[in-house]
Amino acid sequence: MSDRILATYLIETPYPLEHAAQVMAGEQSCGTFTRLASETDSLREAHGALVEHIEPLEVAYAPALPIPGVPGGSTRPVYRRAYVTLSWPLANLGPSLPTLFATVAGNLFELKEFSALKLLDLTLPRPFAEAYPGPQFGVAGTRDLTGIHGRPLIGTIIKPSVGLSPAATADVVRELLDGGIDFIKDDELQANGPHNPLKARVDAVMPLIREHAERTGRQVMYTFNITAEADEMRDHHDHVVAAGGNCVMLALNAVGLSGVTQLRHHCQVALHGHRAGWGMFSRSPHLGMSFVAYQKLWRLAGVDHIHVNGLRNKFSEEDASVIASARTCLTPMFEPPAPGCEVMPVFSSGQTADQAVDTYAAIASTDLIFCAGGGIMAHPDGIGAGVRSLRQAWEAAVAGIDIDAYAREHKELARALETFRR
Amino acid sequence: MSDRILATYLIETPYPLEHAAQVMAGEQSCGTFTRLASETDSLREAHGALVEHIEPLEVAYAPALPIPGVPGGSTRPVYRRAYVTLSWPLANLGPSLPTLFATVAGNLFELKEFSALKLLDLTLPRPFAEAYPGPQFGVAGTRDLTGIHGRPLIGTIIKPSVGLSPAATADVVRELLDGGIDFIKDDELQANGPHNPLKARVDAVMPLIREHAERTGRQVMYTFNITAEADEMRDHHDHVVAAGGNCVMLALNAVGLSGVTQLRHHCQVALHGHRAGWGMFSRSPHLGMSFVAYQKLWRLAGVDHIHVNGLRNKFSEEDASVIASARTCLTPMFEPPAPGCEVMPVFSSGQTADQAVDTYAAIASTDLIFCAGGGIMAHPDGIGAGVRSLRQAWEAAVAGIDIDAYAREHKELARALETFRR
Repeated sequence: MSDRILATYLIETPYPLEHAAQVMAGEQSCGTFTRLASETDSLREAHGALVEHIEPLEVAYAPALPIPGVPGGSTRPVYRRAYVTLSWPLANLGPSLPTLFATVAGNLFELKEFSALKLLDLTLPRPFAEAYPGPQFGVAGTRDLTGIHGRPLIGTIIKPSVGLSPAATADVVRELLDGGIDFIKDDELQANGPHNPLKARVDAVMPLIREHAERTGRQVMYTFNITAEADEMRDHHDHVVAAGGNCVMLALNAVGLSGVTQLRHHCQVALHGHRAGWGMFSRSPHLGMSFVAYQKLWRLAGVDHIHVNGLRNKFSEEDASVIASARTCLTPMFEPPAPGCEVMPVFSSGQTADQAVDTYAAIASTDLIFCAGGGIMAHPDGIGAGVRSLRQAWEAAVAGIDIDAYAREHKELARALETFRR
Repeated sequence: MSDRILATYLIETPYPLEHAAQVMAGEQSCGTFTRLASETDSLREAHGALVEHIEPLEVAYAPALPIPGVPGGSTRPVYRRAYVTLSWPLANLGPSLPTLFATVAGNLFELKEFSALKLLDLTLPRPFAEAYPGPQFGVAGTRDLTGIHGRPLIGTIIKPSVGLSPAATADVVRELLDGGIDFIKDDELQANGPHNPLKARVDAVMPLIREHAERTGRQVMYTFNITAEADEMRDHHDHVVAAGGNCVMLALNAVGLSGVTQLRHHCQVALHGHRAGWGMFSRSPHLGMSFVAYQKLWRLAGVDHIHVNGLRNKFSEEDASVIASARTCLTPMFEPPAPGCEVMPVFSSGQTADQAVDTYAAIASTDLIFCAGGGIMAHPDGIGAGVRSLRQAWEAAVAGIDIDAYAREHKELARALETFRR
């Protein structure tokens, strides 16, 4: 097994592709803008990044991103696109996620040689799997914690996102439990605001969850948003655990890699990864990083669940991209005997009973969390009916029954489709 | 003083501007895609984000970023640009940087109503200044630690970035000390790689720095790149302090907000912030965030220095943007008596003696760190001559002496200009 790190990029450049790729490799390993005497051949051989592969793509006649000047001051520059794969010896950095980030996703985005540069994929050598904890619960562990098998976890987000008191949150939770929900999450905007402090929310919600578990034998998973500074996250985690909770949520981009990894080492419950801010990395086809690369960092850091939007979502992401994201979460990162680090994809954003059939058809798996906020809370017959409509939609999807036929016999589903179908 | 958080964005949308701004405000506070009964008027009034201001800009006939569909399926959509300012009550989140990030830079980038969305500025109420440590040393403290007054700190980056052993690093440091350097930094790619472990590097370098300080009465600042997982960062910080060091460096985007804040609370030396990966946030004029907004987060978290590129840099950033970045670092974030949280801008990337005069003319301050890697290491007469050429260039700049005239009497400067002038 190779001990090299591989990263594949989409690039666009007015320079010859080979030259541009060498600039990337130099900037991200032992080169600088001028070759130094101390950059000896043997140092270069041992530590230089290598251009492993260049696959030319189409040519453009205008730059995708603004670029200052062009080679030789050409008045009719051509912008060549390509996939470029670079590799680095692990010896440059060791199995460190933060230094990996600086290496594969650092200064190179700023290089003036490029009018587009997007990190598409990463392949990491096994020492990363040994150095990092990876998911503690993953798919199987999340199912064990909740007792849900053979279908997705049906979830929701407490809405309104902000503004509810702990007692008002508990009132919503009571209705959700009565309705048969599997999974509830705080909104990413609701962490420890003064109108709804985390500990007061835990204390208001957890007795209901515990009582429901005692009565039904099934513990609903509530993921409390403990996103905060490090000491507070740890304290809040401990409070959730002491109250019998089984999941905590972190806004990954807001906390950062080292904070998430640190919490994971301390964590006793499932770790739910929210990707708020992801649009900054992903909205441009010409900049940032793909979800395939992105989610590998967080899987190694140790999340058990990560958000992937959903079909026909309220955001700008296309369905094909959502499906690719969900599949990549369920694809092993390392070959056995190293752990695969699979995590549960979380479908969320404008989801309702209307998307269940197509979601199942597209990913051919029930290993997912299917979250509907308005799709439950805004069901015309109330929260319980909203939950049941999703259960029914997934029953139809998994059984291969026509959803409209199923809706004729399941009124909550029928009302949901009337209300939400787009 | 208002207790509201303000954020200003550049947007582009095919929808009416007022509608688009309300979508942003709803998504980032108490709304969801459909209005819930529980989103009462009083809850909305207390917790809803407000659209404070809309300033229409030009119109475009093609979307800056791909957008799925347009209103009413129009075949000739118009994309309206505007500056939009939103505000949130502090009561929604409390003075929490991670939740601030999720609020002002979270899901909204993904909203399908927008074909461009960039965070341009943030105004934070004073409780943030009370909740966060801010810079411990800042400009004045950095000058006190190094004994450099009335001119920039002349700095360099150890090059080659990776590949040197601790002993080889020490050899470079020895030459730099002899040459009269003020500031030395590890490259962001060099943290704790197996070929140059952090502790071994500290142990090889610090005796030279200490000996030089004893001899000259002036301690050169070496910023060791302690970017790593949380426990390791703390351990490495302690090792630097025990060895008599006075600065540590973090790759901010790689570590994350909570990790940087945590280290700051523990930190006894200056905290040098590297922004590797910044291009992902900044390269697109239509997505991400401005440096003005970005650096406020890190200043509150507690860095003392932050990178701003430099004039005529090797990256894609225009000079005007570099200057604006440097100035914003030196602009107070809060009004007295709250601390201003000013930090030292770090000029770096393709810098040589050639840029000193223009840099001083543009920012009218010497409160900066001026780092040249190749601009020192690749000086034709060696490292010492490289350092002297930068000192000479800044002497000319600050004294208002014509640089070419000054070069006629200072041969290191003359050779640097011959070699590096572009």
